[in-house]
Amino acid sequence: MRAQQPTFNTKKLCIVMVGLPARGKTHIAQCLQRYLNWLGFKTAVFNVGNYRRMMLGGNQPADFFDPENQQGVRARMELAVECMNDMVEWFSNGGLVGIYDATNSTKIRRSMVKTRLENVGVRVLFLESLCTDPNIVEKNIIETKLRSPDYRHADPEEAVSDFKKRIELYNNSSETVEDSENTSYIKIVNVGRQMILNDIQGFAQGKIVSFLLNSHIMARSIYLSRHGESEWNVTGQLGGDPKLTDRGRAYAQCLSKFIDAEFTKKGKELPLVWTSQLQRTRQTVEHIPTMNVRWRALNEIDAGICEGMTYESVADKLPQVARARKHDKLKYRYPGGESYVDVITRLEPVILEVERQRGPVLIVAHNAVIRAIYAYFMGKSQEECPYIDIPLHTVFRLTTRAYGAEEQLFPLEVAHTYQNKTPESCDSSDEQAERANDNTVTQLENGLHDTKIG
Amino acid sequence: MRAQQPTFNTKKLCIVMVGLPARGKTHIAQCLQRYLNWLGFKTAVFNVGNYRRMMLGGNQPADFFDPENQQGVRARMELAVECMNDMVEWFSNGGLVGIYDATNSTKIRRSMVKTRLENVGVRVLFLESLCTDPNIVEKNIIETKLRSPDYRHADPEEAVSDFKKRIELYNNSSETVEDSENTSYIKIVNVGRQMILNDIQGFAQGKIVSFLLNSHIMARSIYLSRHGESEWNVTGQLGGDPKLTDRGRAYAQCLSKFIDAEFTKKGKELPLVWTSQLQRTRQTVEHIPTMNVRWRALNEIDAGICEGMTYESVADKLPQVARARKHDKLKYRYPGGESYVDVITRLEPVILEVERQRGPVLIVAHNAVIRAIYAYFMGKSQEECPYIDIPLHTVFRLTTRAYGAEEQLFPLEVAHTYQNKTPESCDSSDEQAERANDNTVTQLENGLHDTKIG
Ligand SMILES: Nc1ncnc2c1ncn2[C@@H]1O[C@H](COP(=O)(O)OP(=O)(O)OP(=O)(O)O)[C@@H](O)[C@H]1O
Ligand SMILES: Nc1ncnc2c1ncn2[C@@H]1O[C@H](COP(=O)(O)OP(=O)(O)OP(=O)(O)O)[C@@H](O)[C@H]1O
Ligand SMILES: [Mg+2]
Ligand SMILES: [Mg+2]
Repeated sequence: MRAQQPTFNTKKLCIVMVGLPARGKTHIAQCLQRYLNWLGFKTAVFNVGNYRRMMLGGNQPADFFDPENQQGVRARMELAVECMNDMVEWFSNGGLVGIYDATNSTKIRRSMVKTRLENVGVRVLFLESLCTDPNIVEKNIIETKLRSPDYRHADPEEAVSDFKKRIELYNNSSETVEDSENTSYIKIVNVGRQMILNDIQGFAQGKIVSFLLNSHIMARSIYLSRHGESEWNVTGQLGGDPKLTDRGRAYAQCLSKFIDAEFTKKGKELPLVWTSQLQRTRQTVEHIPTMNVRWRALNEIDAGICEGMTYESVADKLPQVARARKHDKLKYRYPGGESYVDVITRLEPVILEVERQRGPVLIVAHNAVIRAIYAYFMGKSQEECPYIDIPLHTVFRLTTRAYGAEEQLFPLEVAHTYQNKTPESCDSSDEQAERANDNTVTQLENGLHDTKIG
Repeated sequence: MRAQQPTFNTKKLCIVMVGLPARGKTHIAQCLQRYLNWLGFKTAVFNVGNYRRMMLGGNQPADFFDPENQQGVRARMELAVECMNDMVEWFSNGGLVGIYDATNSTKIRRSMVKTRLENVGVRVLFLESLCTDPNIVEKNIIETKLRSPDYRHADPEEAVSDFKKRIELYNNSSETVEDSENTSYIKIVNVGRQMILNDIQGFAQGKIVSFLLNSHIMARSIYLSRHGESEWNVTGQLGGDPKLTDRGRAYAQCLSKFIDAEFTKKGKELPLVWTSQLQRTRQTVEHIPTMNVRWRALNEIDAGICEGMTYESVADKLPQVARARKHDKLKYRYPGGESYVDVITRLEPVILEVERQRGPVLIVAHNAVIRAIYAYFMGKSQEECPYIDIPLHTVFRLTTRAYGAEEQLFPLEVAHTYQNKTPESCDSSDEQAERANDNTVTQLENGLHDTKIG
């Protein structure tokens, strides 16, 4: 490895994944990346397997992974070093949390990785996933490995057996992280049933533990919706606590029918229903026959001195506010109010709580808030968050999958005021034009609108 | 144990402490009780040792704890059962989280405890403290056991040796919690250097883990102060973002001198300085020569539609608001604003962050916010929180100790407007009268005002 690296001043952290193949390392790495970026820590995953596929192609047979195969060993070492070099380079360009995604299953390999990183002033946290239950591993192989580019053209049964052989080869030499390695580590045993934390320090490490503690891998759906059209959506006023319009109330009816069709009609229990504390969200769920939880953290972004004003009057009477916000919509804080970053910060407990839930959840809130929640699930950066298009009268169904969430839009059949001046969606006229367009499409299509993987 | 217990519907939790003597069980139990009560979970500690001292007196020699001593065994079992019965009774009267504080160091004892609790519908979480480092244990004995009522009249050396003998007797038969016990547990090894979490579920258990992860046992001081007198303190207006008055600026100077005397003059590094985002707190720390962190979560309670009004005008123009708030000051939420409970909720991350810090922290914020933080450290209930007296121009120094915090007040030598109409301190005229009195005392005395243990 290279000598003479500069060391970094701010506290940079590398999460070094540890574990045999098909233990969820990549899954965990992706989830952490998404969460930490959303919180505003600049985070990236460096996956050695991708380097292998990129450099050598995806069709290496199991014996490439045999420790007796000298050529394979050397090739894999070179890839690991290449990937590490790129990560160190990325740290030197402002990266804050790097995730080094490889098996790292021997002490000697971990010690090399640790020395290299500590030499450049990066703290190391090993994150090991251990499975003692063979059923979990079998299920993981089928769920993710068969879709892997490594087995694109292979017969499924052969692929599974090749992959098991690959695991076996690692297994012989693999060593779990031990206290004698004198390092911070987190061990996740059997998909989180047990967790062992050793020498956890610092703010970022605390966030990582809280997240891992709340997350699980059961697939389920999260439903997101803004409230139905409110009186202030029509007048274009910001914030406040207005009631729904007739159209908004019609949406509340439709939403209840939608939920009935998704759940009750299919013999499923109703989802948890979470709203903000404002009446427009509460009215939107009032026909859904279940209790709901009202979170203050789900209230709309606080527009401070601009509450009750229209965008036009802000531009007119407080042009410096309109300008500053347009210039940096993410970080700009309304005088006496909030910025998008403030909203993200206060949503963190909601995100952890929704992660913790094993069943479906319906969240009915407001434009800026739904943007921030959507950004989390779909892996959007903070910078993108204030510009995400969340049309009125539309349900977003996000279904969690092994490496991210899958999205479906259901625009329900209720018109809303055409040039809808909803506070958060029309602060730049370009944006407004674009958005109006989008909304039209959404309203023309009926039923299923779009399916993306985020 | 009794038969035919009613089972409870809501999810009640019992934290069952496990560990040899002098492992910090009581310390951890007290901290958790304080934290959970502050968050609004009704929590109480049931300490079997206190039952022993109450029923049999504090002067039982070590051989009372000898498992060979039949009479001792029977007596201790009876006490454990008595204490358990009281806890179950307390659960049936609305208790939510019970903490059963005893050694519980054998499998058979834990199995009995678990069965009893599960039979009445209470979930069980074992919380074990293990020390493999004998120095930690020796230090613990000296720090807490010599002050214990068990050794009130004993010679210190004899007391330590008797206590070690007591530990030895337990040690012979003690068994650490194992996976085969098929239970949720948390193990804290060597004062949190390592933590093992098994089958942690549910909201309260998550809170408990986050708390334990952030807490440590190093003594240090937290300094709390309201901002210096602001222009609105003088006019009696609520909220807003006013500047300091001349007197307020004089306090900022005094505070800086105080910190200089406490730290720099004593050769200590300056504390961390945290303020709200409002200018009156930032101006209050501006002479302290160190960086400060501005937390949005430290902003004053949001008075919603009452921002900028005086208490008189609220009473006059919005009598229903004044009445409702007087009726339930803790839970009453200003229309468009916050309640004290809302403030406590948003302060939770601040509390975890201050717990995590190993060095001193100075927090300069606002009346309602300092009340809530003070309530946490001094173990005040949510109900007491809105009525705690936090005079202007006074530094509270809270020093953490094994079973709680110790408080010292430093009223700095700066006058402030006499009938100070600070928003949070004069919402009932009785209260106002009382408080004016208190303030007078505070201003008359000079230097050290009061020392209590909370
Ligand atoms: N903590 C975990 N323990 C075990 N399996 C998990 C865990 N988290 C996620 N999984 C599951 O593991 C599978 C994904 O495996 P993934 O590709 O992430 O494994 P990997 O360890 O990165 O394997 P490889 O070494 O081949 O890259 C998914 O089915 C996912 O649901
Ligand atoms: N996690 C911990 N591990 C070890 N010691 C701790 C821990 N937390 C606190 N302590 C220290 O333990 C001492 C307090 O002991 P404490 O009285 O709480 O022990 P105990 O286990 O309740 O003993 P006993 O069984 O005699 O009641 C204090 O000095 C405290 O600082
Ligand atoms: Mg992988
Ligand atoms: Mg004790």
